[in-house]
Amino acid sequence: MASKQPMDDSWAERTRAGFAQQALMRTIGATLTHVAPGEVEIALPSRADLTQQHGYLHAGIITAIVDSACGFAAYTLMPAAAEVLTVEYKVNFIAPAQGERFVARGRVVKAGRTLTVCAGEVQAIRGTRQRLIAVMQATMIAVTARGAEA
Amino acid sequence: MASKQPMDDSWAERTRAGFAQQALMRTIGATLTHVAPGEVEIALPSRADLTQQHGYLHAGIITAIVDSACGFAAYTLMPAAAEVLTVEYKVNFIAPAQGERFVARGRVVKAGRTLTVCAGEVQAIRGTRQRLIAVMQATMIAVTARGAEA
Amino acid sequence: MASKQPMDDSWAERTRAGFAQQALMRTIGATLTHVAPGEVEIALPSRADLTQQHGYLHAGIITAIVDSACGFAAYTLMPAAAEVLTVEYKVNFIAPAQGERFVARGRVVKAGRTLTVCAGEVQAIRGTRQRLIAVMQATMIAVTARGAEA
Amino acid sequence: MASKQPMDDSWAERTRAGFAQQALMRTIGATLTHVAPGEVEIALPSRADLTQQHGYLHAGIITAIVDSACGFAAYTLMPAAAEVLTVEYKVNFIAPAQGERFVARGRVVKAGRTLTVCAGEVQAIRGTRQRLIAVMQATMIAVTARGAEA
Repeated sequence: MASKQPMDDSWAERTRAGFAQQALMRTIGATLTHVAPGEVEIALPSRADLTQQHGYLHAGIITAIVDSACGFAAYTLMPAAAEVLTVEYKVNFIAPAQGERFVARGRVVKAGRTLTVCAGEVQAIRGTRQRLIAVMQATMIAVTARGAEA
Repeated sequence: MASKQPMDDSWAERTRAGFAQQALMRTIGATLTHVAPGEVEIALPSRADLTQQHGYLHAGIITAIVDSACGFAAYTLMPAAAEVLTVEYKVNFIAPAQGERFVARGRVVKAGRTLTVCAGEVQAIRGTRQRLIAVMQATMIAVTARGAEA
Repeated sequence: MASKQPMDDSWAERTRAGFAQQALMRTIGATLTHVAPGEVEIALPSRADLTQQHGYLHAGIITAIVDSACGFAAYTLMPAAAEVLTVEYKVNFIAPAQGERFVARGRVVKAGRTLTVCAGEVQAIRGTRQRLIAVMQATMIAVTARGAEA
Repeated sequence: MASKQPMDDSWAERTRAGFAQQALMRTIGATLTHVAPGEVEIALPSRADLTQQHGYLHAGIITAIVDSACGFAAYTLMPAAAEVLTVEYKVNFIAPAQGERFVARGRVVKAGRTLTVCAGEVQAIRGTRQRLIAVMQATMIAVTARGAEA
């Protein structure tokens, strides 16, 4: 569909470095488990201190990991000098967020010069079973020093 | 616009109890600062361990507090026997999430028997200045034991 | 992913009848080109009287065909006694809507008892080439006489 | 909130001219009823040929008028050399679209150099009564010949 050709050789390194700088991902225990051109996967073990009132993972945390997955998926295809920011996203929650761990996947639907559209999903894993719990549609923006801004 | 008449006398108590049960809100240091029929406000002091790669509050955390604000705003107008779940939301990020603290406000736009539509916003506060950093449009669902489910 | 098993034998007939009753689809010249359990495709020849100020198909018309595609995709999996209504949707426009005709596809991501989540896309066709111009993420609701309502 | 200062003197004229060039608005019978800096209102008389299967105004047409209202609201605050395109929007439908006529209002929430965030709503009018039937949250982009593109 869209070209998934990175614009420079540093895409994987840049993406891993960017993820490592997201303090929130460390705070909640999320790890970067896969990086490819236009695709990123992030895993999060279940934790009781991240839940909402029914004991499910809070929607904001589900959103945090799939936002990071989509944002870094977009980032893999951006120029080395660019930074990525989230313009907006929409998330549907389609099953209770219960599981031993959660896996968020983000992929680029269309990489543009300024804006990149991504699709994301989150699976809840229990043993060998996985269940789709959320889907995201997001818009990311490439920001350079010169400054195309949101 | 929509009727903002609670359906029982326990709305404030129920809402405060529900918020207290959200482990994530404690984990990130968020507090419930205002509850009224169809309106909830949540405050969050800035914390370095909740940021993304540029040092701004992570979009997922911005989303977490405004999702809780919208969800509990909807909950104030639901029957006492109902639980509230997030069906979906959309968030636009309109300025960098920098500040000493953040205030999320959720309000009911339309309370239906099954679904409630909410509008939310997040302000970043620095001294006496506040800046709008995000807006949310969300759909919440009332779930009873009998079980209207998402 | 989700079960795509229709709940009765009339799903195709009901869906075609529902589409035939959408006056707007006749007005703009859209036709139902494919119906399967959880999947619907609608085609629209290009028309100058449906454009915006740059001569592209108006976003509202792109949305109309992909909303109908998603709504009827959800409808194929609903009980015969139910009606389908759109709760909400989000659409990203990712390339100019120029072409000889447009094809909207809707598919069910998750069919629930009350709510169904769908994904949609619109392709612009010119000769043998097609280009993705829009993606939708939508929530549909099953409404019965008894009345679960939005 | 956001500055609503137009960047040139031609904002009203440019906006009226842009609306007049939207063939779809003529086709469906919509008219531009109000233009102010950062605010646009569009009216649409009810018409049976624009309905969905239950006789309500089709969601795509509701969306078309509020998309145009939001897009032109953004356009009033853009430089004279810019064009406006819709990046994405999200719409919630909160009551049946029945009425003698419909009024869509779009307003700018935040005008940025590249992106503008808008909020929109649609009211159904019957006699002296009006009812809120839809709310939109949208992102618009300013495109110049040089070409910041979606």
